[in-house]
Amino acid sequence: MKKNMNISSAVILRMPRYYRCIDELYRDNCIRVSSGTLAQRLGLTASQIRQDFSCFGEFGQQGYGYNVKKLRYEIQEILGINNNYTAILVGCGHLGHALINNFDFEKCGFTLTAVFDADETIIGTTIGNYQVRHGKDLDFYLESFQPDTAVLTVPGDVAHEVAERLAQHGIRGIWNYTNCDLHISNPDIKVENVVLIDSLLNLSYKISEKSE
Amino acid sequence: MKKNMNISSAVILRMPRYYRCIDELYRDNCIRVSSGTLAQRLGLTASQIRQDFSCFGEFGQQGYGYNVKKLRYEIQEILGINNNYTAILVGCGHLGHALINNFDFEKCGFTLTAVFDADETIIGTTIGNYQVRHGKDLDFYLESFQPDTAVLTVPGDVAHEVAERLAQHGIRGIWNYTNCDLHISNPDIKVENVVLIDSLLNLSYKISEKSE
Repeated sequence: MKKNMNISSAVILRMPRYYRCIDELYRDNCIRVSSGTLAQRLGLTASQIRQDFSCFGEFGQQGYGYNVKKLRYEIQEILGINNNYTAILVGCGHLGHALINNFDFEKCGFTLTAVFDADETIIGTTIGNYQVRHGKDLDFYLESFQPDTAVLTVPGDVAHEVAERLAQHGIRGIWNYTNCDLHISNPDIKVENVVLIDSLLNLSYKISEKSE
Repeated sequence: MKKNMNISSAVILRMPRYYRCIDELYRDNCIRVSSGTLAQRLGLTASQIRQDFSCFGEFGQQGYGYNVKKLRYEIQEILGINNNYTAILVGCGHLGHALINNFDFEKCGFTLTAVFDADETIIGTTIGNYQVRHGKDLDFYLESFQPDTAVLTVPGDVAHEVAERLAQHGIRGIWNYTNCDLHISNPDIKVENVVLIDSLLNLSYKISEKSE
């Protein structure tokens, strides 16, 4: 597949939603789907969807729609889901704990390989299928196993220090739950911030809109 | 302020990001800001920002830009941040625990008033400033105090049952962390789903784009 490299960030931001919708159709044994049906399910217009997909090359056919299996595969390729990325998790407090136990890393194409914490009372304990490793061993692990990404769920006051250690040892991406803006000197290291505030503000808008 | 009621959902989805940016400027004692500066900080175009803000009525002036304090207030009004909504949290497992301890409800204009769980071993214990209440008392609490919203952090297998109880007792919005699609019979009750998968897929895209 040939990618058009001038894809707007707005299109990229819609891709995960497309993926979830198409993955669901795929799991429901759906063979093909029209842009109209996708539009209805996603609350967008059909022309928007056709336009978005055309940025990545044409994979729909007029009058037929999209082949679900092919479309799913193409979006997996676009989003890198087929790249088998590895992830470690640093910070096994309540949030880290919840992610280890409940987040479906595999659905995103990620394999969680190890989890770390600095708290002596939980090092060596087991969370899900993972034995919590000592934070001191993080650098050695990074050098030895070169995980692609790290889930950062440490307290804010150590966020920068840990992020720099991850960066120095070749991590490629950080999934950042710390609420800190990470200023990493290496621009090749990608950071995705999880900002839960936006989601609660969306709810606030919905209920205030209703009451007017 | 007069609202244009045909605001696209895409504009609404950008509003929380605008708010965080403008709130930061406000806290840095910034008096005014141009659409160009906002565009740079947000990775959007200036014309996009002007167009988005014009949906809600004109509050910028050509050659001057936007008054930060006024803009912040207007966006607070749009998003309902000034409405002093109350919230309860149901499900004090690891995720609920993390939200109670670390999430800044006040920044979104919400006051967390009570937290509930069904697990006898944690009922009565204290998390942050909250004593965990018995899940059995939820209906009575809802009737007595009529909280506006609920944060739903219960396990998936009881998500629907709890959501229906919340709905029956007049909750107006649910911030849903359960990964379940809640089918609530009352369409006036708004649900905001927290979907962390999209965020990790964004990171996946960023690192796979880089490697090409």
